Amino acid sequence: MAEPATISPATLLKDELDIVIPTIRNLDFLEMWRPFFQPYHLIIVQDGDPSKNIKVPEGFDYELYNRNDINRILGPKASCISFKDSACRCFGYMVSKKKYIYTIDDDCFVAKDPTGKDINALEQHIKNLLSPSTPFFFNTLYDPYRAGADFVRGYPFSLREGVPTAVSHGLWLNIPDYDAPTQLVKPLERNTRYVDAIMTIPKGTLFPMCGMNLAFNRELIGAAMYFGLMGDGQPIGRYDDMWAGWCTKVICDHLGLGVKTGLPYIWHSKASNPFVNLKKEYKGIYWQEELIPFFQSVTLPKDCTTVQKCYIEISKQVKAKLGKVDEYFIKLADAMVTWIEAWDELNPSGAKSAELPNGAAK
Amino acid sequence: MAEPATISPATLLKDELDIVIPTIRNLDFLEMWRPFFQPYHLIIVQDGDPSKNIKVPEGFDYELYNRNDINRILGPKASCISFKDSACRCFGYMVSKKKYIYTIDDDCFVAKDPTGKDINALEQHIKNLLSPSTPFFFNTLYDPYRAGADFVRGYPFSLREGVPTAVSHGLWLNIPDYDAPTQLVKPLERNTRYVDAIMTIPKGTLFPMCGMNLAFNRELIGAAMYFGLMGDGQPIGRYDDMWAGWCTKVICDHLGLGVKTGLPYIWHSKASNPFVNLKKEYKGIYWQEELIPFFQSVTLPKDCTTVQKCYIEISKQVKAKLGKVDEYFIKLADAMVTWIEAWDELNPSGAKSAELPNGAAK
Repeated sequence: MAEPATISPATLLKDELDIVIPTIRNLDFLEMWRPFFQPYHLIIVQDGDPSKNIKVPEGFDYELYNRNDINRILGPKASCISFKDSACRCFGYMVSKKKYIYTIDDDCFVAKDPTGKDINALEQHIKNLLSPSTPFFFNTLYDPYRAGADFVRGYPFSLREGVPTAVSHGLWLNIPDYDAPTQLVKPLERNTRYVDAIMTIPKGTLFPMCGMNLAFNRELIGAAMYFGLMGDGQPIGRYDDMWAGWCTKVICDHLGLGVKTGLPYIWHSKASNPFVNLKKEYKGIYWQEELIPFFQSVTLPKDCTTVQKCYIEISKQVKAKLGKVDEYFIKLADAMVTWIEAWDELNPSGAKSAELPNGAAK
Repeated sequence: MAEPATISPATLLKDELDIVIPTIRNLDFLEMWRPFFQPYHLIIVQDGDPSKNIKVPEGFDYELYNRNDINRILGPKASCISFKDSACRCFGYMVSKKKYIYTIDDDCFVAKDPTGKDINALEQHIKNLLSPSTPFFFNTLYDPYRAGADFVRGYPFSLREGVPTAVSHGLWLNIPDYDAPTQLVKPLERNTRYVDAIMTIPKGTLFPMCGMNLAFNRELIGAAMYFGLMGDGQPIGRYDDMWAGWCTKVICDHLGLGVKTGLPYIWHSKASNPFVNLKKEYKGIYWQEELIPFFQSVTLPKDCTTVQKCYIEISKQVKAKLGKVDEYFIKLADAMVTWIEAWDELNPSGAKSAELPNGAAK
């Protein structure tokens, strides 16, 4: 690898990482994760009826927030947090005090690598976050910082230091993350291909960020990880992570931060109902044809030197340009501003710590 | 896969693909490739002393060109073809009459997949070239057209048809394609990681294209596959494929064509001498710091609707902007023009067939 990493990441970040889990059911799935997750602190965000009691297996260190807690903590600003949708998980990012977040869905289990060994997904995410990204030029041997790999011939030396990694996007074996139409057309398709790669998504390229198995550096990009308005009372669902991914990628590109995708895999156990998904998604499927060109054309002014400033600027552009597509985006743009206000209230030093050194913005 | 492909590619393209091999030695390496290459026609370009006799194993159908042949066929325009450097291979692209080209180095052997099976590299390249590319948006499950894969949730439906694939860039197990400094620092590093993926290199992203194991659609992009002025009498070597890759990628991006990288692997048997390589590369290592920003900023006017027009336009920009870096680039810019003249002379219908339908250019 280009830069030897002799760290033992899993141990290193025990006190610097929170695991955020949105759920509506008892967290039995944690049993399988016990060897990997037990040293970490969990933030559980209860999605739906707050009177329901969520059981967490013995021995885990956790805090749990239901809708009543969210309303109490955020007051009127709680309006920016989705209800009856896993988008509520972003509340957990906001109340965390740690540098790193790993978020995982409660229908995701430990996958096995091709040798049959259990994959420690969290450890791989930490390795991804602690090594740089290379957004400015493609490396054909994938992540040049991995053991046994490096930059290939023709890779400019001035770019080999890389940039800080803000996001690590992990993948899924078994049930792939398909939209409802694809689920309907290919109900039996399973992802069985283990691709042994991690790569940086190049600058200027958008990607579909899935929230099922995702880690990020909260200090670097947390304030942009807003999962939008989904679920109860909203015209759309299942675009929470996509929205966060598009905003995040545009801001990472602007601030010179990296987004990685690839390893680690988790085992996604069961497909959600495609008919229910279709109902949630259909406006999103239509709107995304306008959203992608919008995000591809967003430019942020040079004085947007913090994630918060970038995010507020994007909210203005959302209101001005996407407001014409549907009034939902006017409401969403307002919620984006509320989200940042709430973030800064709960993270008073956040705006300062997120300020990058001079010249980091493009 | 998004689009079922029931073709048997290897058989299909027997009369539509030439294999181009630059060499200075007897082609014993072909023995190992016999089961895969024998149905195809070979174009061998002899690099160096034309009086030397190159032996080709029995049973292969081939034509062989040495320097005398190149001079005879191209006359004064032969000046654009490098001498004593494998960059001379691009002469083979020019004299081919086929739609597809596969080019391979004579120190590359058949690799094995993780199950121990011999990899038919050519068949995989053909599959890559016959399925579309997706340069406008990243698909996290890699090539969506492969069996068992598709576009993931959040991928715009309007982009799922993809664009024609112009280039398929294959990789190497064993000896990785490192530059001289990396070779010197890590003499024992071997690439043992088989990454089971093919992906499109996103629009706007440059990559280091290696000529060791490369296939392309000659009709779509052949005229841009000029390997430059390297070797005898030139101040630089080992940047022939890089140069072709940068020009090609910029033109593919402009014309809406795709470039794929990943599978197939070949087995790269021996590392070239890093001290010799350092001598060849050192100006390139220095110059590439200026070349990459140059190619990142090249824009082609809308009326550049053929590869030839794009290439001539790039040659002008090379002369105007890189001519200041070193006078070598003035010579190279002239050679680029000569290359196109020679190409059109040998491929009289080329300019016409390369014209894309209206609106294909951005």
